[in-house]
Amino acid sequence: MDLVQRLGRGEGGFLLFGLTPPKASAAGVDLDRIAGSTVARLQSLDPDGVVIYDILEERDRNPETRPFPFLPTLDPADYLDQHLAGWTKPAIVYRAVGKYPEDHLSEWLRQQPTDRVATVLVGASSSAHPGLTTLPRAQELRQQTQPDLLTGAVVIPERHTNRGDEHLRMLAKQTAGCSFFVSQVLYDADAAKNLVSDYRDECDARGVAPRPIAFTLSVCGSLKTLQFLTWLGVQVPRWMQRDLERSQDTLAASLDHSRAVGLDMLDYCRRLGVPAGLNIESVSARRVEIDAAVQLASELRPALHA
Amino acid sequence: MDLVQRLGRGEGGFLLFGLTPPKASAAGVDLDRIAGSTVARLQSLDPDGVVIYDILEERDRNPETRPFPFLPTLDPADYLDQHLAGWTKPAIVYRAVGKYPEDHLSEWLRQQPTDRVATVLVGASSSAHPGLTTLPRAQELRQQTQPDLLTGAVVIPERHTNRGDEHLRMLAKQTAGCSFFVSQVLYDADAAKNLVSDYRDECDARGVAPRPIAFTLSVCGSLKTLQFLTWLGVQVPRWMQRDLERSQDTLAASLDHSRAVGLDMLDYCRRLGVPAGLNIESVSARRVEIDAAVQLASELRPALHA
Repeated sequence: MDLVQRLGRGEGGFLLFGLTPPKASAAGVDLDRIAGSTVARLQSLDPDGVVIYDILEERDRNPETRPFPFLPTLDPADYLDQHLAGWTKPAIVYRAVGKYPEDHLSEWLRQQPTDRVATVLVGASSSAHPGLTTLPRAQELRQQTQPDLLTGAVVIPERHTNRGDEHLRMLAKQTAGCSFFVSQVLYDADAAKNLVSDYRDECDARGVAPRPIAFTLSVCGSLKTLQFLTWLGVQVPRWMQRDLERSQDTLAASLDHSRAVGLDMLDYCRRLGVPAGLNIESVSARRVEIDAAVQLASELRPALHA
Repeated sequence: MDLVQRLGRGEGGFLLFGLTPPKASAAGVDLDRIAGSTVARLQSLDPDGVVIYDILEERDRNPETRPFPFLPTLDPADYLDQHLAGWTKPAIVYRAVGKYPEDHLSEWLRQQPTDRVATVLVGASSSAHPGLTTLPRAQELRQQTQPDLLTGAVVIPERHTNRGDEHLRMLAKQTAGCSFFVSQVLYDADAAKNLVSDYRDECDARGVAPRPIAFTLSVCGSLKTLQFLTWLGVQVPRWMQRDLERSQDTLAASLDHSRAVGLDMLDYCRRLGVPAGLNIESVSARRVEIDAAVQLASELRPALHA
């Protein structure tokens, strides 16, 4: 059964591969080359679906200097439609809804083939600048124009550590029509386990079935990438951060940690009866880090069906 | 090579079994029976050493009602000398130094056979009530009267989570003559790994060799024992606490968690080059929990020499 059906039925055990679209400035031969090698990589790895991010500058969220400069990227929906034709399996297309006027968003929602595309609607990173469309309004538009389009939401274990109410946000998003979740990049398994535990309890208290959660893993091949992850709000346990800093081979150490976090989460969610899958990505565009992400996905695939 | 020599040389890989002496009210046949079955258990498990606690009421430390009532216990040194003659391998005898006048403590220190006995000196749980002898003074007495008596100190990962300076306390204790550490009961591996990481870094910065750390594991066979652990100041990650609460078999779930924490710490310390061993105990006097502690020790022994 394919990814969209499985997510719709509330099943876990799926493997996703996350992609950031190329820079908006890429064009012609360059863009064809990037898209070509991406499709080849996807066909070889053969995940159940691809996740395509909608990148925001997010200056609002973090006033500190971004370790990698922000460069606008292609629209994920355009990238999928125009450049990833070779990928015929399902895609989960992110929509940073604040970037789009309502009519543009409605039009896009209406056009999606619901048997092959799902979406993750993402609100503004700062409530002071909600942008052109707010998340609740985007959820309404989805219900009105394309209720069959499977819609997911972002879940942030770190927010649960700090505020303790992320499980309630998840259930509120379910009420608003959300049928699966994708986590922020995860390095702190304990934080995610606390969230899943509270989510499971709250689902039980309300008599609601827990929805599938994709845990996002991203390897880190350099201290600059580590710095970028931290800038993005990923909480890396101090001992793990020091492991990466001490290591002669940051990438290998990071692969070990991400593998352990992935196995830990799959095992824990299975024990709790919360459907879970994995979303593997590289937050950097470096070749070695993308290759390591593919390796991580291959290594973790058997554990999805354990 | 025996435990005392190994600790003296700064080596890890040792297995300790922790004992709380019987109630002070036990006597005659009852006491003989308890000591007899304890010695039989020790001989069968054959750890590298036994740890005998010196129990304080610790009302100062936690104003909340103690889940198990406090009952004074036999003096650990007396218990070893008078009732555990069948155990001929090394013993680590705790001394809650605030309980003893200086001359009593000095006399005890002087009498110990340094090839078979080591001690852990423990200060008062509240600085408002230092008791009859303070920890710094006890350390001085040890240096003066019996400098060859191997002396350890307590290390509390939870205190590191809250204050961030436990690694500095460890190094200060080393300067005061301490040659090994025994942790509080450990359920939160991340907290302990953060501490070990900072300890390793500080040892490197000072050009000092890290000393052996015994990580204390204690299974929990009931929610009342869990409550007692929490009362003692043990931080149990929320997801783990809920696992124990949800489980049909608390003891089996706890055994799984303690085993995982033990393996995690041994693996992590090996990677960091910090000598580590295990100290397995039962905080309750229930037979099933003591048996489970013996089982945990047997299961973890092979990992000590991995």
